[in-house]
Amino acid sequence: MTVQQISSFAAGEWLAPGEGARNIASAITGDVIATAGNNALDAQAMLDYARNVGGPALRALTFHERAKMIKAVAMHLDKHKQALYDLSFETGATQSDHMIDIDGGVGTMFVFASKGRREMPDGHVYLDGDVEQLSRHGTFLGQHICTPLQGAAIHINAFNFPVWGMLEKFAPTLLAGVPSIVKPATNSCYVTELAVKIMLDSGILPEGALQLVSGGLGDMLDRLTMQDVVSFTGSADTAMKLRSNPVIVENSVRFVAEQDSLNASILGPDAAVGTPEFDLFIKEVHREMTTKAGQKCTAVRRIFAPDATVPAVIEALSARLDKTVIGDPRLEGTRMGALVSNGQKRDVLEKAAILATEATRVYGDPDNFEVVGADGDKGAFLPPMLFHCANPDTAQRVHDTEAFGPVSTIMGYRDIDHAIELVKKGQGSLVASVITHDSAIARQVAIGAGAYHGRLYFNNRDSMKESTGHGSPLPHMVHGGPGRAGGGEEMGGVRGVKHYMQRTAIQGSPDILTAIGEQWVPGATEIKGPAHPFTRKYGELSIGETMHTDPRVVTLEDIEHFANFTGDTFYAHMDNEAAERNPFFPGRVAHGYLLLSFAAGLFVEPNEGPVLANTGLDNLRFMKPVSAGDTIKVRLSVKKKTQRNDEYGEVRWHVTLTNQDDDLVAEYELLTMNAY
Amino acid sequence: MTVQQISSFAAGEWLAPGEGARNIASAITGDVIATAGNNALDAQAMLDYARNVGGPALRALTFHERAKMIKAVAMHLDKHKQALYDLSFETGATQSDHMIDIDGGVGTMFVFASKGRREMPDGHVYLDGDVEQLSRHGTFLGQHICTPLQGAAIHINAFNFPVWGMLEKFAPTLLAGVPSIVKPATNSCYVTELAVKIMLDSGILPEGALQLVSGGLGDMLDRLTMQDVVSFTGSADTAMKLRSNPVIVENSVRFVAEQDSLNASILGPDAAVGTPEFDLFIKEVHREMTTKAGQKCTAVRRIFAPDATVPAVIEALSARLDKTVIGDPRLEGTRMGALVSNGQKRDVLEKAAILATEATRVYGDPDNFEVVGADGDKGAFLPPMLFHCANPDTAQRVHDTEAFGPVSTIMGYRDIDHAIELVKKGQGSLVASVITHDSAIARQVAIGAGAYHGRLYFNNRDSMKESTGHGSPLPHMVHGGPGRAGGGEEMGGVRGVKHYMQRTAIQGSPDILTAIGEQWVPGATEIKGPAHPFTRKYGELSIGETMHTDPRVVTLEDIEHFANFTGDTFYAHMDNEAAERNPFFPGRVAHGYLLLSFAAGLFVEPNEGPVLANTGLDNLRFMKPVSAGDTIKVRLSVKKKTQRNDEYGEVRWHVTLTNQDDDLVAEYELLTMNAY
Repeated sequence: MTVQQISSFAAGEWLAPGEGARNIASAITGDVIATAGNNALDAQAMLDYARNVGGPALRALTFHERAKMIKAVAMHLDKHKQALYDLSFETGATQSDHMIDIDGGVGTMFVFASKGRREMPDGHVYLDGDVEQLSRHGTFLGQHICTPLQGAAIHINAFNFPVWGMLEKFAPTLLAGVPSIVKPATNSCYVTELAVKIMLDSGILPEGALQLVSGGLGDMLDRLTMQDVVSFTGSADTAMKLRSNPVIVENSVRFVAEQDSLNASILGPDAAVGTPEFDLFIKEVHREMTTKAGQKCTAVRRIFAPDATVPAVIEALSARLDKTVIGDPRLEGTRMGALVSNGQKRDVLEKAAILATEATRVYGDPDNFEVVGADGDKGAFLPPMLFHCANPDTAQRVHDTEAFGPVSTIMGYRDIDHAIELVKKGQGSLVASVITHDSAIARQVAIGAGAYHGRLYFNNRDSMKESTGHGSPLPHMVHGGPGRAGGGEEMGGVRGVKHYMQRTAIQGSPDILTAIGEQWVPGATEIKGPAHPFTRKYGELSIGETMHTDPRVVTLEDIEHFANFTGDTFYAHMDNEAAERNPFFPGRVAHGYLLLSFAAGLFVEPNEGPVLANTGLDNLRFMKPVSAGDTIKVRLSVKKKTQRNDEYGEVRWHVTLTNQDDDLVAEYELLTMNAY
Repeated sequence: MTVQQISSFAAGEWLAPGEGARNIASAITGDVIATAGNNALDAQAMLDYARNVGGPALRALTFHERAKMIKAVAMHLDKHKQALYDLSFETGATQSDHMIDIDGGVGTMFVFASKGRREMPDGHVYLDGDVEQLSRHGTFLGQHICTPLQGAAIHINAFNFPVWGMLEKFAPTLLAGVPSIVKPATNSCYVTELAVKIMLDSGILPEGALQLVSGGLGDMLDRLTMQDVVSFTGSADTAMKLRSNPVIVENSVRFVAEQDSLNASILGPDAAVGTPEFDLFIKEVHREMTTKAGQKCTAVRRIFAPDATVPAVIEALSARLDKTVIGDPRLEGTRMGALVSNGQKRDVLEKAAILATEATRVYGDPDNFEVVGADGDKGAFLPPMLFHCANPDTAQRVHDTEAFGPVSTIMGYRDIDHAIELVKKGQGSLVASVITHDSAIARQVAIGAGAYHGRLYFNNRDSMKESTGHGSPLPHMVHGGPGRAGGGEEMGGVRGVKHYMQRTAIQGSPDILTAIGEQWVPGATEIKGPAHPFTRKYGELSIGETMHTDPRVVTLEDIEHFANFTGDTFYAHMDNEAAERNPFFPGRVAHGYLLLSFAAGLFVEPNEGPVLANTGLDNLRFMKPVSAGDTIKVRLSVKKKTQRNDEYGEVRWHVTLTNQDDDLVAEYELLTMNAY
């Protein structure tokens, strides 16, 4: 194999390795296969390119436009994934591992694209939460908004997932409207380089939106400002060094850290041998020990089982580990490949030796195991190793020493409170799982140990067919954890996008809030359109376009008629004395649904027109009862517009019903689909 | 005046000053009035007391119980505020300043109490966002929750607002269920001490919920763990030193910093002399320069006006400043009191000298001004000082030097883009204000400079009667800012409570999510009650209690009848050919409101009973049209219960309508008020 030159993509140019380049070895053979790094990389030029070229181009797009771009890039990557699979074997990963890294990365982009379309506006300002009523008469209001940071996002990624590790940060950053500078770990940067090449070749991304550093970052972090973000994944030692950088501290540069942690899995006290939960537990723990040869930040490092069940767990787990074929990941029968490097293998063995001071190795011998199709002395192979710690209360190193390979320690617990106490000794983890069919146990762990975890994963017979696995961070859910896990948070849908935006509290008049948020705020100027709004096409309607209907009297006959027709003969509508006893009503009152129906009768335009359907209704509140003889009238204003496709878009109307005294009777938001 | 001994409240005991105590001088006379500090304070004992006594007691309460406690404490403080006023004059503050500090602090507690009741559950787990659909068949779902951190919150506060500065952090911390250790700045700690005494004397707070350090923190920060939080307000230098503490960095201890910043106020290009906005601008800037003698983290330090309007602004502002009587804050005619100390006064003069290297002083002479009722040489008095910088593009110190007193610099701008550029030179601020009646200008500033600000305040003729002021952080809105402002965030309603909780992603079956969140999740077990749920009292209903109704056929006569009765003769219900042309419908379909009304007819119980009223409806979505001849039936489940008072509580029902094929027709949440 020729030695590959792994380039960086800096300020619009691909730059080959130069002075300061490092050799990268194959995980399988130990031979040098690539070289990466260049001391001549100009960090300031890269930052300037991101800030002055990429940022403005991305900020000019709406959230929906960026979401569509993410989807297009994901589809392009998906088409070219075979090349990524082929190259990834050199990192020691199996085809199953590739599915997590490559397909998982592409899938993450699809979810962000979809969330961007569904949960963010087709505009430039994201509204965070509702309008805050800061004044009695509503002339001065509050609204939180998020806008993109105007700097660059520096993504420092770990070696284990060269594709997913990049994309899970790149997707939310792009959606936020912020350019990325990606720095993968050098050991597997050749896979990331290929993925970046594929993405750039697609021609979909604006110039400056994505740059790549293969090798070291140089002095880039010393050049950051308060508009930049660092998203770091890796070891606690490196995180501590980077986040203490005086420039980062002085400029309050956002620093998101995701460090490895001593994740736990708990077998519930109810999950005895023979239950579906016991078998599920063995399967999940086995998968977490062996997937990616245990080089997963979410892998199970600590296994907790009821004292009496520990021997059965060791036995069942050992039996399953026995079937785990270790070898060249390219071979079809291989279940576990190699670690990323011999350096990593040495590190795991050192950490295993530390665990051995407090625990006994009950499965796996690193000096004696079979490697299929490769030279076990040259490649970075290790067998799965299971330790048993008999004194988890007094032990410390089993709770703080992470062997980043196929290594776990099993410990017994007395009762669930004891298990919670032991789990917390990890001092902050990305994830813990609990395999239980007892919802009360689940609640106890959530309340007792939630504060120590970024994620809690519960599984049992009800959910196991569709569950996604202890070790899989999903784009919908936050990934990260407190304490030892770094104190950071990534993904979690829109939450992860906000990491690259600034939240700003806006205070002002309804008109100003309407202009900033592109959503009509009650109290803002009402626009009188040239015709009934239901006769106007989606594209013709303005935010704030308003109609006021004629009034309609609600009679006792209406109430009785409606009650008999619908069957809703609730006493508040039918029985004056009973209604008078009710604390909310003066006597018989009209049905809420009667009011809604009459309101629709007042505002709809009967003729065929651009309004296609009433698709829903939100935030309906009845504020004041309507008695027979009262009059109602309706105000209907265009609150928000969201284009759905070339043919139609959703219109959100703000609606108020008032009575003859102009008192508010009901308020709600109505959704219609309108032709373009 | 006798020298007061300012105590600390540590691990349940009041501890008088001892070795290491510092003298505190009156701002008005310069005489020593108090002494505070004790090197014998046992930081570990205080932390243990908070973690082992206060934390468990607070976590045993629900959010609503804690909210009620906050309200009770606020009412108690409100009753005793005269004593706080009386003492606060010594800090140099006027009665108007006390209103901001003391009444503002109490008001902040009331808002948190109210938000806790309205926006958080009467339970122990806060649900953050909606259920995430992680599986096709809904057997495995996601939900984010927040639970209280299990450590202590260390509040390190600034000297300027000894009461508000404590309460704006204490209220959200308490609501979260986390104990506080308050360390006020020594210069004004005697006011904080009195406020703490009043709160503890009320007997409302559980033991361990509140401790006080008057003087230095000792080595407390070296003893923090990943479950603790530091909320710091003060100078950038101190923040940088504290947040670099190796223990804080290594344990990923949350560190929220709110530092002073170079806040700006912009006079809009539309706000010419003679407009209501021009006068408003002068009034707001004057208030920000002189309130609390300019010792406000949100005070206006940089004033931006259109080039041509700068002379008029200087003239109008100077005229207003001329009327600002400086003197003993106890005197009724005094508009501006003293700075907190002569040390602070010296610091302001030093910073003013730096500003003078780039700007000209156009108002105020520190060597020549009148002090009424006090000795200007002994007290910490200063006059308001206005500088004018003619070259704001090339100047730097006017954008980065904060004189924490009655000092501001005015600069001209060419157009709004230029103003945005200049504002951003502050490199991150707590707040900027824009006085404009032009909504487009407001939007331009929000998009252009939002990323540099924690808050943007817009004001004009429409909102000025009800506006709350450039400098007033409100409990509803986030307070904090990026970069120079510290990169932190406080308050903002529930957002601020979350700073003291851990967000955890929960994954599991619908039953497990229901148990953890105390909210029924679709797909979870349905509980069959002993009778129609509308005959059951609030307290009798279980989460998940479900009824299934009989089916009802919807006929063409029903549709026509409903249309004619309500007036809703929309073509999709009346005109088969037009409906067929519509992309959503197979032909004429039933009105959504007809379905809602029939659904109510199917599930209501007509006799007088515990259901008092239908108060609202949320998240209604119509999923599938209903044609004449189709059948609908209803499932109604108790989703959530929220007690409102001793007489009734709100029940949130999850409702689905299905057709004869069991396809989902509509889904919504119904709100009723039910008797207890």
